[in-house]
Amino acid sequence: MAIPLSVTDTPTAIQTMRGLIENRLSSLVPSETTWPARLHEAQRHALLSPGKRFRPLLCVFIAQGGGIRAGAELDAAISTGCVAEMVHAASLILDDLPCMDDADLRRNQPTTHIAFDESTAILSATALLNCAFGVLSRLDQVPAQRRIEMIDLLSYAVGSKGLIAGQMADLANVDQGATIAEIERLNTLKTGALFDFSVEAAAILAGMRASQRAALKDFSYHLGLAFQLLDDVKDVVMSDAEAEKSVNRDIGKATILALAGSEASKRKLQDYLDHASAALQRAELSNLDMLTAIMDHQFAFLRT
Amino acid sequence: MAIPLSVTDTPTAIQTMRGLIENRLSSLVPSETTWPARLHEAQRHALLSPGKRFRPLLCVFIAQGGGIRAGAELDAAISTGCVAEMVHAASLILDDLPCMDDADLRRNQPTTHIAFDESTAILSATALLNCAFGVLSRLDQVPAQRRIEMIDLLSYAVGSKGLIAGQMADLANVDQGATIAEIERLNTLKTGALFDFSVEAAAILAGMRASQRAALKDFSYHLGLAFQLLDDVKDVVMSDAEAEKSVNRDIGKATILALAGSEASKRKLQDYLDHASAALQRAELSNLDMLTAIMDHQFAFLRT
Repeated sequence: MAIPLSVTDTPTAIQTMRGLIENRLSSLVPSETTWPARLHEAQRHALLSPGKRFRPLLCVFIAQGGGIRAGAELDAAISTGCVAEMVHAASLILDDLPCMDDADLRRNQPTTHIAFDESTAILSATALLNCAFGVLSRLDQVPAQRRIEMIDLLSYAVGSKGLIAGQMADLANVDQGATIAEIERLNTLKTGALFDFSVEAAAILAGMRASQRAALKDFSYHLGLAFQLLDDVKDVVMSDAEAEKSVNRDIGKATILALAGSEASKRKLQDYLDHASAALQRAELSNLDMLTAIMDHQFAFLRT
Repeated sequence: MAIPLSVTDTPTAIQTMRGLIENRLSSLVPSETTWPARLHEAQRHALLSPGKRFRPLLCVFIAQGGGIRAGAELDAAISTGCVAEMVHAASLILDDLPCMDDADLRRNQPTTHIAFDESTAILSATALLNCAFGVLSRLDQVPAQRRIEMIDLLSYAVGSKGLIAGQMADLANVDQGATIAEIERLNTLKTGALFDFSVEAAAILAGMRASQRAALKDFSYHLGLAFQLLDDVKDVVMSDAEAEKSVNRDIGKATILALAGSEASKRKLQDYLDHASAALQRAELSNLDMLTAIMDHQFAFLRT
């Protein structure tokens, strides 16, 4: 199948890419009838429920903007983007558990432990994380040394100094005089780490220069902060139905919104996005319009 | 520090190697004061509680028997053995959770969710698995292609067709006319998969021939079956104090012991061990005495 590398119409290109990502996600995990079926049903429930696929889109379009070619290189970028989505899905399964955020609704569906049971949810999250590493190790079209770099990167992003540390800190987060800087640090771990992976892995695949990588690091840092703040705002102002997940999970937690209030938070969010856009321009990618379009789509809520 | 490669006295050599493994395990995970401290305390609680370190010993001595050199190569084998121990510790944390085997005691200590809490236990298990992949990706002394092979291997051993599948099947295991062959299949996933990793990773590190690898595959298959059957026997005949963990977790489950009875199970166990020994001889390793000694130590219970 030919994968279109350049489509003039941006929304169509994004929609086409989202379709390719959905297909790839589905093919990277075992089918629902593979034994043990219940584990694989739960994995697919969590991974394939309707999502915006923001992390994979980011990874693929940044890699494209960095000059990867259609065919095997684009193919590897799609799989790498899916790796970020698999780890994201695993983290959501765990976050939603009764002993963590105790959420019933996610992406407008029952959370995995509700649809199945706790042990199946925990094992399917573990299996998704494990599978993510396997997908990277099996990217045969990518030189072994680059695969190793990406595996290393994923391990740091997820690890006890990244996503997992962020979740630990979030669970311990009770509103006790935290500063904005402390909350930003938490948000960087909780949300930023996986954005960092998506963006830096794309830079590795495209073999980008150090100056581009530095600009992209700055971009993903501010994007992660913007993304988490938007999530916090949605938790307060939206209903479960509007957010398509259980809201009001942040009551009693220190968030920027709780600390600075609604108007200041909106300004801060715009500030993060402005920083992210400026950094993205410095990265000298060939498809700035495309990346701007997926960010606009993601943050459309700001214009409501 | 010079690592002794050949010590004439086998028990001393094993004891020395166990000490090196303990030190390495301790250095591969963050210290107890690293933020977030509670996560790292829990990780260390689970990983560093007294254990026989059978999987790392197996990995290191098989790699030695296959001809790895002292220094950097032995160093890599020790870290790789520790990877198996990290994944083993992660799997024990999850197995012991209230929603799984609901066990309070492990290695004569409170299980991780008892000593800490459920969310910390789940996150520390996830962090250990994640860290295991990171350790393999960072084995700088091993060529990237071999590191990729080992990461691939680990992902298969843990994955939804290995350890995790075994745990799913074990949770669904209620004594309903399972055959010995079906139970053996379950035991191969639940216990054998990580033995396979320990043994095959050693073969990769030592660059063994296909004939040696095939013999070692046969060895780890039978060793895994023997190990799980011994575990089942201990669950029935030992007290918590003797087994140093919560026993009677298998009541109502289909085990070979439940199906075939005590005497036939002991004969079957001996049969597995005989097969394992024969396969080990075919692998043409240079230190058969050492490997025989660690197996004898592990299965000393059979002589009681």
